[in-house]
Amino acid sequence: MHQHGGDIYSHKNVLDFSANINFRGMPESVKEAARAGVEDCMNYPDTACQTLREEIAKREQVEADWVICGNGAADLIFSLVLAEKPREALVAVPAFFEYQQALHTVGCDIKFHYLQESNGFLLQTDILDAIGPETDLVFLCNPNNPTGISILPGLLEELLKRCEECKTLLAVDECFLDFLEKGESLSMKKYLVKSKRLFILKAFTKMYAMAGLRLGYGLSGNKDLLEKIRTMRQPWGVSIPAQRAGIAAAREIEFAIASRRMVQEERDYLRQKMEEMGYGIFGGEANYLFFQGPVTLYDHCLKAGILIRDCGNYEGLRPGWYRIAVKSREENQKLLAVLQQASAR
Amino acid sequence: MHQHGGDIYSHKNVLDFSANINFRGMPESVKEAARAGVEDCMNYPDTACQTLREEIAKREQVEADWVICGNGAADLIFSLVLAEKPREALVAVPAFFEYQQALHTVGCDIKFHYLQESNGFLLQTDILDAIGPETDLVFLCNPNNPTGISILPGLLEELLKRCEECKTLLAVDECFLDFLEKGESLSMKKYLVKSKRLFILKAFTKMYAMAGLRLGYGLSGNKDLLEKIRTMRQPWGVSIPAQRAGIAAAREIEFAIASRRMVQEERDYLRQKMEEMGYGIFGGEANYLFFQGPVTLYDHCLKAGILIRDCGNYEGLRPGWYRIAVKSREENQKLLAVLQQASAR
Repeated sequence: MHQHGGDIYSHKNVLDFSANINFRGMPESVKEAARAGVEDCMNYPDTACQTLREEIAKREQVEADWVICGNGAADLIFSLVLAEKPREALVAVPAFFEYQQALHTVGCDIKFHYLQESNGFLLQTDILDAIGPETDLVFLCNPNNPTGISILPGLLEELLKRCEECKTLLAVDECFLDFLEKGESLSMKKYLVKSKRLFILKAFTKMYAMAGLRLGYGLSGNKDLLEKIRTMRQPWGVSIPAQRAGIAAAREIEFAIASRRMVQEERDYLRQKMEEMGYGIFGGEANYLFFQGPVTLYDHCLKAGILIRDCGNYEGLRPGWYRIAVKSREENQKLLAVLQQASAR
Repeated sequence: MHQHGGDIYSHKNVLDFSANINFRGMPESVKEAARAGVEDCMNYPDTACQTLREEIAKREQVEADWVICGNGAADLIFSLVLAEKPREALVAVPAFFEYQQALHTVGCDIKFHYLQESNGFLLQTDILDAIGPETDLVFLCNPNNPTGISILPGLLEELLKRCEECKTLLAVDECFLDFLEKGESLSMKKYLVKSKRLFILKAFTKMYAMAGLRLGYGLSGNKDLLEKIRTMRQPWGVSIPAQRAGIAAAREIEFAIASRRMVQEERDYLRQKMEEMGYGIFGGEANYLFFQGPVTLYDHCLKAGILIRDCGNYEGLRPGWYRIAVKSREENQKLLAVLQQASAR
């Protein structure tokens, strides 16, 4: 049974470090927009998400026609797979479970490309050899979840080139990229104008802490692909509160910049303290840290009222791997106290 | 290009008679629950929709394990089809367009059973002969949309029996059934306990006027089917505001009873006035009326600031068929004034 992060419903009254959400919470303007949207919910949502797509396009500096919105980024993963119906797909793992789940819905043959601990889980050029004409779709996450490690820009360019050669669709999940200072330069957005084989996945969920509202979006210069995705799903997938919240979030640029800085500061603090305790931490460029600990750590934390993400069930990992979100100083200190106890045992 | 009802975004500042929403709007308790839910949207939604399913189960007098929730009823139509992957399906038409759209996503061969104007669009027993061992799935809407005509209880029972014989899944869309006084007695719920071939679709969208929040649910006694549907989609499909609103709506029983009575009164008023003007009205047991008018009626109404549903593009219909929602007396009078002009031309 797959175990998701953020399950505060099975585990009540816990301090949740298992979901990678901006610890600052939703900006007030976003909350207010969502609440105001509730007033209009007697109507169906705009099937075209017109205003939302225009605001996202401005923010992302892309064409509004390249934007497709969904009921969370996960919704777009499933719709993309249903539109493409790949017979064979490549997934770099460990990674977000929903790529696999979505591929299973169409009976796809999944090839795993295993990121190696010996390379610090950094994606290597050997992935290029794993892509061939038989590969219909590649899923990559940049920076990767759960490792928080980004892909080298040169490799990204080579990957797209290889996908073009093999007529393979390259789906790059950039849902956490906004947490990286060099995020804009790492984004594949610059290739949208010339490549029809590229689909970029993004979400406001993480940066704007609106996971419960459900809003994600995809970017592609391939309009036929976007149209095909639209035919694979209901027209009213994105609720009115989510559309309104997204419009407000797209305008909250300063909030994102300040959040990135605050997350970085707290991440450095957490990392240093955890390393002092002897935890082995890998990567961690986004708003979460990926590390090794005793196999009993999840239970230990839960008993102390803290929920962490046990990554032992990820394809390509084994028990003893964990992920924690970076939260506020006060919350991080509570976690550190519990981790200290565990490491001392 | 399919034209949906409720598109107040392409047609701004219109009085919308094209979407079949309870004219009383969302009950205050439902709005308040949705707004309060926004506050918690930093968290992911409950993947199990546990509390919501329990409340729906109480309201529907079924087991909570028989309930599956979705991002609107349309979401469940697509997930059901993806789970079943029917090779051949039967759809009684004219009907809600999304049955066909969903079936197309899996390349299903769709057989249409045409409801006949000569029978007043009432479903006849000849549909039984259209179901065979090659039929994997049947979509029925009760009462039907856009006609507003319900299926005779005896025929429903025979239909299920025929589906059991042919190992066919029977999907009955009861999204508008709560508007019928005899709704409970017409519901297929009573067969859930013994049939594994039955899936009932319902939504709070219409009765509780929460179309913009997106919440629908399915009922089935076939737990394997429900589990299969769950694997076909993201785990976080129902937003927190929608779950909270649904919990509040499930408790608003008096609101539904009063709404049914008020809708009936306004429907009778509209029908009488329209018949006096010479419009031919068929059926109309729910909160909408289906009728024939001049082929220019849609444009005529739109020029007068009123949006009606042009049903000319429904499979099984032709230009000159329309659907209007039953709204408040004041709104209905505005519509009647415009219909009067059109009929006088």
